[in-house]
Amino acid sequence: MNISEYNEISEFMQKCMCDSAHDREHVMRVLKLALDIAEYEENVDYDILIASCLLHDIGRKEQIENSKLCHARVGSEKAYDYLLSRGWSNACAGAVRDCIYTHRFRSDNPPKTMEAKILFDADKIDVCGAMGIARSLIYRGSVSEPLYTLNEDGSVNDGSDTLEPSFFREYHFKLKKLYGRFFTKRGREIGEKRRKAAEDFYSALLSEVQDSHFDGAQNAKKICSI
Amino acid sequence: MNISEYNEISEFMQKCMCDSAHDREHVMRVLKLALDIAEYEENVDYDILIASCLLHDIGRKEQIENSKLCHARVGSEKAYDYLLSRGWSNACAGAVRDCIYTHRFRSDNPPKTMEAKILFDADKIDVCGAMGIARSLIYRGSVSEPLYTLNEDGSVNDGSDTLEPSFFREYHFKLKKLYGRFFTKRGREIGEKRRKAAEDFYSALLSEVQDSHFDGAQNAKKICSI
Repeated sequence: MNISEYNEISEFMQKCMCDSAHDREHVMRVLKLALDIAEYEENVDYDILIASCLLHDIGRKEQIENSKLCHARVGSEKAYDYLLSRGWSNACAGAVRDCIYTHRFRSDNPPKTMEAKILFDADKIDVCGAMGIARSLIYRGSVSEPLYTLNEDGSVNDGSDTLEPSFFREYHFKLKKLYGRFFTKRGREIGEKRRKAAEDFYSALLSEVQDSHFDGAQNAKKICSI
Repeated sequence: MNISEYNEISEFMQKCMCDSAHDREHVMRVLKLALDIAEYEENVDYDILIASCLLHDIGRKEQIENSKLCHARVGSEKAYDYLLSRGWSNACAGAVRDCIYTHRFRSDNPPKTMEAKILFDADKIDVCGAMGIARSLIYRGSVSEPLYTLNEDGSVNDGSDTLEPSFFREYHFKLKKLYGRFFTKRGREIGEKRRKAAEDFYSALLSEVQDSHFDGAQNAKKICSI
């Protein structure tokens, strides 16, 4: 890919993402990680891989505005139309569309091509480790979800047994399950390297919460005996 | 303090904080931590300590609506008026006012009484360790601040040398400096116990960011050589 094509696709991506620096940095990390993984694989089509990384989240805005829409599906069609309009062949634009369409977790829709597997893994690495914890917490803050919720008896729910949205629930039902789901050896290797930081953080936070949790009944009784 | 007085002050606190579960859990953790610290000190007035903990953040709403207002100052006066209206003596309501007024970091306004020192330390412990990291990230998300910012040359700023708001900057200028600022031995001990979780998380995140950072000039050159 030449520099002007790279720059033009980047500019299109930034416009689609409303120029959010936060989203742009995620896309750039995914591209960097994908290039890392690609070095360990053979027969990678870099034009398809680079365009897929740059454009993989361009359907986010539509999903935020209408939660029934899937950003992978919307984004894949937007990317396909855009690349055709740039003069890309149907085969190449279609390959990018397939990569973007399969980059989300969907048991019925796994990535099939090498470029699609690399994009999937690079995108998942950015939800592993400390970065996954940080992005998840920033997201909870943006939608006003709590760190944790309480059980009916007033004790802290560690996230494993609740339907109420919280950071602890997200950790149990998404973040901690990522590490077994990579498609490339290098992706799995980077994910494993980051795993401990996430596990240590969750354990430390749960322990701190439990140590300082004011259990309504038990602690109020203590206060009234003082 | 009897149970009905405790419940009534709690209800007043929750109304002042717009019934936010997030803020309430912080207040409850501070109360639990303060009772822990108090066990290691002598001559603690528990009525003053408990009321101070419950009411220490009731000026937050005013500060959010007008950033020129200090929540410690506003909250201390609200608490004083409220306790006088409940029949508390001027001396006791005034002691609670002093605790709340001095619970923020202010080099010119340190906590003086035992109860004020305990409230200060308990409130600071809830910004230490993994909890401090989590609360800081949730806050960044709620005000749309980024994890990190970039230097002019496109490299990642680790937070130590920037005026632009970010999580990395908050870590360097606030979170990592907490541990030397406790007034009680027990407070310092709990803070120290939590310190490593925060340091490990920051180091892991910085390392992950740097490993996956797409440096504009260098990486674009690589792409165009592919």
